[in-house]
Amino acid sequence: MEDTYGRLISSLAVENDKRIVLLVMDGLGDCDNDGRGTALQLARKPNLDSLAGSSALGLSVPVATGVTPGSGPAHVALFGYDPLVYQVGRGVLSAMGIEFPITGRDVAARLNFCTVDSQGRVTDRRAGRIPDEENKRLIARIRKGLKATAGVETFWETESEHRAVLILRGDALDDNVGDTDPQATGVAPLRADRPPHDSSKTAKTVEKIFSQVRKILAEQPKANMILARGFAKTPTWPTFAERFKLKPAAVAGYPMYRGVARLVGMPIVAEPTTAANVCTDAAEALADHTFVFAHFKYTDKAGEDGDLAAKIARIEEMDAALPTLLKAEPDVLIITGDHSTPPSLRAHSWHPVPVLMNAPYLRGGDGERFDEVACRGGQIGTVTAKELIPLAMAHAGKLEKFGA
Amino acid sequence: MEDTYGRLISSLAVENDKRIVLLVMDGLGDCDNDGRGTALQLARKPNLDSLAGSSALGLSVPVATGVTPGSGPAHVALFGYDPLVYQVGRGVLSAMGIEFPITGRDVAARLNFCTVDSQGRVTDRRAGRIPDEENKRLIARIRKGLKATAGVETFWETESEHRAVLILRGDALDDNVGDTDPQATGVAPLRADRPPHDSSKTAKTVEKIFSQVRKILAEQPKANMILARGFAKTPTWPTFAERFKLKPAAVAGYPMYRGVARLVGMPIVAEPTTAANVCTDAAEALADHTFVFAHFKYTDKAGEDGDLAAKIARIEEMDAALPTLLKAEPDVLIITGDHSTPPSLRAHSWHPVPVLMNAPYLRGGDGERFDEVACRGGQIGTVTAKELIPLAMAHAGKLEKFGA
Repeated sequence: MEDTYGRLISSLAVENDKRIVLLVMDGLGDCDNDGRGTALQLARKPNLDSLAGSSALGLSVPVATGVTPGSGPAHVALFGYDPLVYQVGRGVLSAMGIEFPITGRDVAARLNFCTVDSQGRVTDRRAGRIPDEENKRLIARIRKGLKATAGVETFWETESEHRAVLILRGDALDDNVGDTDPQATGVAPLRADRPPHDSSKTAKTVEKIFSQVRKILAEQPKANMILARGFAKTPTWPTFAERFKLKPAAVAGYPMYRGVARLVGMPIVAEPTTAANVCTDAAEALADHTFVFAHFKYTDKAGEDGDLAAKIARIEEMDAALPTLLKAEPDVLIITGDHSTPPSLRAHSWHPVPVLMNAPYLRGGDGERFDEVACRGGQIGTVTAKELIPLAMAHAGKLEKFGA
Repeated sequence: MEDTYGRLISSLAVENDKRIVLLVMDGLGDCDNDGRGTALQLARKPNLDSLAGSSALGLSVPVATGVTPGSGPAHVALFGYDPLVYQVGRGVLSAMGIEFPITGRDVAARLNFCTVDSQGRVTDRRAGRIPDEENKRLIARIRKGLKATAGVETFWETESEHRAVLILRGDALDDNVGDTDPQATGVAPLRADRPPHDSSKTAKTVEKIFSQVRKILAEQPKANMILARGFAKTPTWPTFAERFKLKPAAVAGYPMYRGVARLVGMPIVAEPTTAANVCTDAAEALADHTFVFAHFKYTDKAGEDGDLAAKIARIEEMDAALPTLLKAEPDVLIITGDHSTPPSLRAHSWHPVPVLMNAPYLRGGDGERFDEVACRGGQIGTVTAKELIPLAMAHAGKLEKFGA
């Protein structure tokens, strides 16, 4: 796949001192929650609505029609990278999720503790969802029992319940390693070095390590084995700074989002979690950056919890905090989500995400409200998420003319 | 060309028991017919309009902006296959149109009877549009007069007027065969085995057969030769069932549409032609399928006949029949056309096609009417036809999340 649009934008990018803010209210988009309405429709949000009157509105498709994105690809897209071209492996996302300081020499994999029977066949892929404490105890056991492998350092990290992360560090490691998770019970874990992975030195190393782990855990009544999937190296992408000629800063309170920011070389300047702090920290970061990514998690969390009232409350919190950010007078302010998280679905969804862009050179303001229905008729139309930063750059005079 | 979107959707597809119906009113879209209005605007259709109030609306582009599709590619797109990647040869479409039971060993071509002068130059590419009976008489003559060719069976079939279909059957046949139709008069038919087709054994066979045909028809006053175009093999595509993990059924009364359904491995479970029977048979098929394609031909036919009143009447028929289908309670119901067929144009057109999608997790209903103008403001927006099934699958919970 080619990143035609990204290369075009990159070739046109020029530096100036205009400042762009991308404020992401995670999981902002919604459906009508069985007729009750969307959280944006129901929230009392005078600042956002008033801003809509002098802003462009639109809808953004994170990945493609009908496709529900994870947080990783959804943010990759918002950062202006085609999420189908710039894919992040599962293992790397897991490492980012626990904020493991992953390096270019690392290969990461997502682990499950599982239970196997006396013949070594998986009987429970999640080992009865063991509690975090049990997970930590078993991880300590592995760390202690494992013999050193020449040239490879291993890091074993608890995530939660049955979930853990393995990071292999060494020179010339590759990620041509098979998932050992058979995605089924009644069968043995798969070999990491089975074809077509048999050419991989790393796969052979993993296989040796896992047979040690089997012995170390053998006496456990359950959670007596591990399953791995998504072995992946940190991708080496063009940095955000070089791609867009912007000086970026990330303001994000949750590990996953700091992780994605780091993937594109965006320095983390603050780690706020409340709406008030997100806006204060973003305003501050504007003093010496031309691009600020500010992330607010709780709208998504409320959606995942199926709590429409909480989602409304979180939007209202952000609305109240917004004047602090507006006072810093960003030249272009994008307010959007990375994806939709409807409370009635209790999960991420495929629905296009509302976008508000306050910027110079608009075709008037798009109305009195910021919500899914108003955005549908807005001047931005329906675009893909990766187009938002280029559009903001255009409004900020940061894109040269194409051709003479 | 790559089928990036299709592969993405296919990689995310999961099976569940939710049921999707795609009801195609052929040629449904319209233009304003010289100011009179579109058929959908003029029809009295209380059921469709009421359904719009609890459905998503939008417009669908069959192939690309400005491009008028044939029935083949239009349905290929509706079935979720990129019509530019998944192309069907003219010969195969012709064979499908007469419902010839084409196999994987066949190469099919569309034939015209033509008239040539004493020097063998084409004087009339359509032989004065001879009547069907004359066509059948000549086809019988060819069948009788033709000597057997080792290893190749031939099937000669009348279509209508000057049109016929040739099917070659044999092992290792290829479709690297040149059109013999010069698309002009005053020149001789082209050779099937001219460069770059001179490497094709099949082209040489065709050339030998056609020189026999010339002798067999030599005494005819007109229609004394044939012209061939669109030599093509049946494509081998991923089946609809494996691509989308759906259990499909086709309900279609016309050969062409059954043919396209068969191309994607969709079994034909009923062959109704009236609106009432289409709805009854589709409802029945829902009992043991997770996807039903139901096709209604007459809206297109009325458009092709330039008969706006008839097109309106056909829509009203379908509207009256609809409750039968609704009673079967499909989880997602798409009602759309494969393309537009405006009566004032008397032909297929390029206009985007109205789409109605009744499904859970909507952003409210999109209004009080189902027509081209209402659809323009709907929540689906303007999408390509190949995106409709993935979108329906999303609403039916049949697509996993992309990335973590």
